[in-house]
Amino acid sequence: MLYFIGLGLGDAADITVKGLQAIKRCSRVYLEAYTSILTVGKEALEEYYGKELILADRDLVEQGADEILKDADVTDVAFLVVGDPFGATTHSDLVLRAVQAGIPYRVIHNASIMNAVGCCGLQLYNFGETVSLVFWTETWRPESFYDKICKNRSAGLHTLCLLDIKVKEQSVENLMRGRKIYEPPRYMTVQQAADQLMQIVQRRREEGEELGMTEDTVCVGLARLGADDQVVRTGTLRQLASCDLGPPLHSLVVSGRLHPLEVDMLRLTAEPDALKGLKAIDSSTYCS
Amino acid sequence: MLYFIGLGLGDAADITVKGLQAIKRCSRVYLEAYTSILTVGKEALEEYYGKELILADRDLVEQGADEILKDADVTDVAFLVVGDPFGATTHSDLVLRAVQAGIPYRVIHNASIMNAVGCCGLQLYNFGETVSLVFWTETWRPESFYDKICKNRSAGLHTLCLLDIKVKEQSVENLMRGRKIYEPPRYMTVQQAADQLMQIVQRRREEGEELGMTEDTVCVGLARLGADDQVVRTGTLRQLASCDLGPPLHSLVVSGRLHPLEVDMLRLTAEPDALKGLKAIDSSTYCS
Repeated sequence: MLYFIGLGLGDAADITVKGLQAIKRCSRVYLEAYTSILTVGKEALEEYYGKELILADRDLVEQGADEILKDADVTDVAFLVVGDPFGATTHSDLVLRAVQAGIPYRVIHNASIMNAVGCCGLQLYNFGETVSLVFWTETWRPESFYDKICKNRSAGLHTLCLLDIKVKEQSVENLMRGRKIYEPPRYMTVQQAADQLMQIVQRRREEGEELGMTEDTVCVGLARLGADDQVVRTGTLRQLASCDLGPPLHSLVVSGRLHPLEVDMLRLTAEPDALKGLKAIDSSTYCS
Repeated sequence: MLYFIGLGLGDAADITVKGLQAIKRCSRVYLEAYTSILTVGKEALEEYYGKELILADRDLVEQGADEILKDADVTDVAFLVVGDPFGATTHSDLVLRAVQAGIPYRVIHNASIMNAVGCCGLQLYNFGETVSLVFWTETWRPESFYDKICKNRSAGLHTLCLLDIKVKEQSVENLMRGRKIYEPPRYMTVQQAADQLMQIVQRRREEGEELGMTEDTVCVGLARLGADDQVVRTGTLRQLASCDLGPPLHSLVVSGRLHPLEVDMLRLTAEPDALKGLKAIDSSTYCS
């Protein structure tokens, strides 16, 4: 059996009892290590689970699937994923390979940012399409996520923005020379994400475009969600662009239409004056 | 401390280790029992947790919050929610009351249908707004969810449909006479949900409306997600309208634009010919 086991969001104890029991039965345990991170490292997990973990980077999962699947028809193998195995990044490819090889698989779910984001007080069923923000380079500054956010907002919906993670990236030079030297991992912060959005808003304004959001739009910055030291900070986009929420992982939410109960919840984590600019749309909803 | 603890989706062992540890510290443990159900009953949970559970129905949560919060500043109290505490139904009201009363609170997340639905093979970031389907009555047949599904589809997005749960409902007669006699609980099935959608499609067609979905649209029925006997069934809307997926809870997904990997995943659970009508939109996406 191949187990896909979600680890949840905080530390080692966020695994489910069912997931922990499954790990203990497995002869090999892989830890997917390129789409998310826990606030604790591999060693802490190994100690907690009482098992050695094999780090599975993107190369191993995409090109070394045979190694992961080896003997999984006669023994139990676990593939651990921070959050839920079918969260922001799905592992459909590995599922399909297992099925093709006649290996039964089972999913043990857990919380992921895709549902835990609800703790900020914005209601999950008022979220539209989720977007991803990538690190801009000198020559590549995509803005399509901005248009999706505005489309969600025009329908009254909030947007969860997943922020870029760069793990095991090579510099162009090292890549060209075939040197397997990797850059230090980079995790986009709420501050960086808000700054990117501010730049887009500014550019669109200069082009005379009608703006779907502004520097005063209410946003929520989330850091290390589910961990003991999680931070949830509500502010205008401008405020979040100068907020330091500490170590990774970070996510950002751009609000849409707000119900009074949502506003009350946001108030619990709001910067001074963050909600001051809210305008009543009708008797029971607000927007910024 | 007031703990909001998600129980996940399957049975007693789907709680996180952290959640279970918190329960063991608590002097009172409430089980929210009106927005979802596990496949195991209260007694099985009590045995597993080694704690007596107090059932919290809607009346208790909405009107008896003081009872839940009593002494939670000096002792630990847990409020258990199937899925995640901030999943489809949020418990913002209880959070706000706790904060007002100066009681610290903590959330221990878990999987909910809002993220676990990803296991069907449709990618979570391709989902639009979530909708709810309610049981129709003779005089009340709302259709607004249909328009939201079509709006999602026109943007290429999938739609998660949460299906109605009627627990502790009174008949009109019993309500009028003030008799606290309750009807047996009712849980909408995938079959019923698909049938409602078929009726709407048919009515809109007769009115000459341009259709955002049809009886041939590919949908996914989900039953008891996360439990040992979970069922995932992919079919056209018409096929799902005559599928029996067994006991509750059920959910339904209406597909939007499909990527080849999503189609491959759907194939694993597809009824014969379910995916036959897919049309290529461009070189890499399909729709029905």
